[in-house]
Amino acid sequence: MLQNKLDSFKEAMRRVADINYSSAVLQWDQEVYMPEYGSAARARQLATLAGIAHRESTSAELGTLMNELLASDDIKDKDRRNLLEAKRNYDEKLKYPEEFVVKMSRTVSEAFNAWQDARKKNDFNSYAPFLEKLVELKWQECELLGYGAHPYDALIDQYEHGTTKADLDKLFDDVKTRLVPFVRTILEQDKPDDAFLYKHYNKDVQWNYGLKLLKQMGYDFKSGRQDISTHPFTTNFSARDVRVTTRISENDLGEMIWSCIHEGGHALYEQGLPDEDYGLPSGEYLSLGIHESQSRLWENNVGRSYDFWEHNYPALQDLYPENLSKVGVEEFYKAINKVQASLIRTSADELTYHMHVLIRYEIETLLMEKQITVKDLPHYWNSKYKEYLGIDVPDDTKGVLQDVHWSHGSFGYFPTYSIGSFYAAQFFNKAMEDIPGLKSDIRSGNLMNLKKWLNQNIHVYGRQYTADELCLKVTGESLNLNHFLNYARFKYEGLYEQLGV
Amino acid sequence: MLQNKLDSFKEAMRRVADINYSSAVLQWDQEVYMPEYGSAARARQLATLAGIAHRESTSAELGTLMNELLASDDIKDKDRRNLLEAKRNYDEKLKYPEEFVVKMSRTVSEAFNAWQDARKKNDFNSYAPFLEKLVELKWQECELLGYGAHPYDALIDQYEHGTTKADLDKLFDDVKTRLVPFVRTILEQDKPDDAFLYKHYNKDVQWNYGLKLLKQMGYDFKSGRQDISTHPFTTNFSARDVRVTTRISENDLGEMIWSCIHEGGHALYEQGLPDEDYGLPSGEYLSLGIHESQSRLWENNVGRSYDFWEHNYPALQDLYPENLSKVGVEEFYKAINKVQASLIRTSADELTYHMHVLIRYEIETLLMEKQITVKDLPHYWNSKYKEYLGIDVPDDTKGVLQDVHWSHGSFGYFPTYSIGSFYAAQFFNKAMEDIPGLKSDIRSGNLMNLKKWLNQNIHVYGRQYTADELCLKVTGESLNLNHFLNYARFKYEGLYEQLGV
Repeated sequence: MLQNKLDSFKEAMRRVADINYSSAVLQWDQEVYMPEYGSAARARQLATLAGIAHRESTSAELGTLMNELLASDDIKDKDRRNLLEAKRNYDEKLKYPEEFVVKMSRTVSEAFNAWQDARKKNDFNSYAPFLEKLVELKWQECELLGYGAHPYDALIDQYEHGTTKADLDKLFDDVKTRLVPFVRTILEQDKPDDAFLYKHYNKDVQWNYGLKLLKQMGYDFKSGRQDISTHPFTTNFSARDVRVTTRISENDLGEMIWSCIHEGGHALYEQGLPDEDYGLPSGEYLSLGIHESQSRLWENNVGRSYDFWEHNYPALQDLYPENLSKVGVEEFYKAINKVQASLIRTSADELTYHMHVLIRYEIETLLMEKQITVKDLPHYWNSKYKEYLGIDVPDDTKGVLQDVHWSHGSFGYFPTYSIGSFYAAQFFNKAMEDIPGLKSDIRSGNLMNLKKWLNQNIHVYGRQYTADELCLKVTGESLNLNHFLNYARFKYEGLYEQLGV
Repeated sequence: MLQNKLDSFKEAMRRVADINYSSAVLQWDQEVYMPEYGSAARARQLATLAGIAHRESTSAELGTLMNELLASDDIKDKDRRNLLEAKRNYDEKLKYPEEFVVKMSRTVSEAFNAWQDARKKNDFNSYAPFLEKLVELKWQECELLGYGAHPYDALIDQYEHGTTKADLDKLFDDVKTRLVPFVRTILEQDKPDDAFLYKHYNKDVQWNYGLKLLKQMGYDFKSGRQDISTHPFTTNFSARDVRVTTRISENDLGEMIWSCIHEGGHALYEQGLPDEDYGLPSGEYLSLGIHESQSRLWENNVGRSYDFWEHNYPALQDLYPENLSKVGVEEFYKAINKVQASLIRTSADELTYHMHVLIRYEIETLLMEKQITVKDLPHYWNSKYKEYLGIDVPDDTKGVLQDVHWSHGSFGYFPTYSIGSFYAAQFFNKAMEDIPGLKSDIRSGNLMNLKKWLNQNIHVYGRQYTADELCLKVTGESLNLNHFLNYARFKYEGLYEQLGV
């Protein structure tokens, strides 16, 4: 009887997953292959599926079933963790009145269109009224969800459950007082020459090289595939169908290389989730921060390391002798780790990146605390870029209009990018401790021990724990910026011997 | 009030279409891009969507709404036709008990797997028990649906509404007494040399040539795209997203050319349906026979005509000078119209094709009339191939196991292939009458007048009429084999001057 109920619960969860993964297929297709005029019908189809998924995932039967199961002492361990987490998600979804969901969805659509338009025309003012409506709705959302000390807690919790504004304040305080001064010292050094990265690189050759990198990481092409899209992303329709996309620029070699490795890291996480737990929390990723830790670990800790390129650079040289035959691996390594104050977050190096995130975090918390208004955003944006990165923002398109997130109503999302990088450093340190000879593994192109370690220590648990619980379980301590700082110091002191930092 | 109800009806229909088109995206992906291990989750996802679509399309609310609307005299013309057709589909779906649907779905899955296996191993006996179960269920289905003179009426009606076994008996009797003797005479003639079609043809060059053919037909690439799949097909997710697939053989030029043109014909139909009627009968294809008439018209009446190749052949010669420079357009035309008795339906020429269909029609009606059993199928298959085509079937893989249809539970489907070709000839005749200079249009590569004629006379009506009503409306008479016979005689008498038929 209890087993029957448990089976019914799992099947109900899997049905919702079926619908959501179906939407994911439609979204993947939309980004990758859909013809231009297909978009109107596609929007309808996605909206209908979203409505059905919402209805099924908030059904009274499902709520009753979960309550009955949770009342039994015989539901233990993973089953109990799955039920608790599913019930938490269920209760959260129930907090949204349908009217609010519809209004939010419509407002997001309008704001997104207005953002695209404003970005093209460099016209923040045309976008501001739409963003104002959206901010108003986000305030309402905070009230609907409820929160502890600060409304922003309700927002960050959706992406990084268990993390509060207090946690983030502490973390970004650390970033400001410890990372920012370090990065400033580096920004003062002479820059390595990286002009050769921007010569002409044939696209087909790049494509094939990217596939080889994914294979080397252990990405399983029988459970996935790579395609081209404007913005690289990873999506999945089960742990056995995890797809990545990349973009290739003929005049910027790095774009393909690090989008492949970054998305490959995300994909290994999804491929490493337990397929038998399809549709259950234990079969799904933990949080955005943990997801990003997997992509960043591969992109930066591995993919921008000297060891990695000692193995991989000769083959790359052979593919592009006209560009690279006279560039040694040391020179290549320096170039791909050039640190430079810049305007655009997505193309920032691994150090200044966190200043881009810090700026967004400071601005969006001010906005959610009602200390500034939407109209103030460009001013705060520009002055913070001056303050933290010492650069002038020439126009809003390269400034406050550059990110899609706010137009999607995603406030509280940006911090997960930094959290991910910091987790990555902490996990990678632990992997170095746990795996004898990992450094020389990487130097010889063997990445399988690292992949296995991530599978066994992180991926396999899905969302059975909070990020903090997982971090404690894996590394013996909570998130600690020291790991990232030590990684950065060690790496960049080597790169800038004269640094004296 | 009435308008509100009408809007609700349309929206309910469109929601069902959203779900079904979502399934179509998942199926397209499955055939074209899905990685190998993705299939288990995909099967789940498709089953869940099918269940939801069934639930929504048979809801009591929808039934009540349609009855209320149909009771009003103010519902007229297209609205009334849409309601009548939607109600007919609704009533038909209600005839299926859920238990039966589940059992059928499971039996089809098993039979399909058994068929794939049996075909590989040339082992009909291993498949027979599964097919027997399926035939048993199809008999039950006939009883559930109800029928007039013959159970088979219920089956054919699902593909070609309004057509009965009596109609088909009459049609295929005509085929037997008029077309078969004509084809036999042709089979006795000397065959043209077509060896050059099987030389080596570079795949990429073929691909690009195929795209040009589609463009020439007026296929809109902003509302569609072409990809590669094992079995070419057309699918659509709205009239603005209609996709075709093709296959390319490096040693058989014809495979790509006629799959492109054939699927292109299907696609022009779907792109020509009124997009504003998305989800309503008037926005959907009429019947399989009418769909096939569009593909066959382009494939055969246009794509295998001398006029078409007089324009297109020189460009093809330029692409493959090593194979074609010494082959004149006359020789090419004869080769692509070679008539030959063969074992496999899908690669048959446009004349013997109908003998393949006739054989299947005769066998499946015997089976549904319980005059033969599944075990008798190979015997009847082989003896009818001897009787109609004069050839021996060497094994069941090239015989009774060649088609997927029966393993899918599709009985009554095959006749629509012949019906489609016969409609094609009749429509094309009318187009020749209606469009001044169509022949010289085609000879100069201008296919737009023909496309427009099909758009305006056939596509635009969707499923507002039955096939017979449409045929009468367009050509002034019901389906009449004379048009196909005259087309065949005129064409093949020219090809075989000595024929004297």
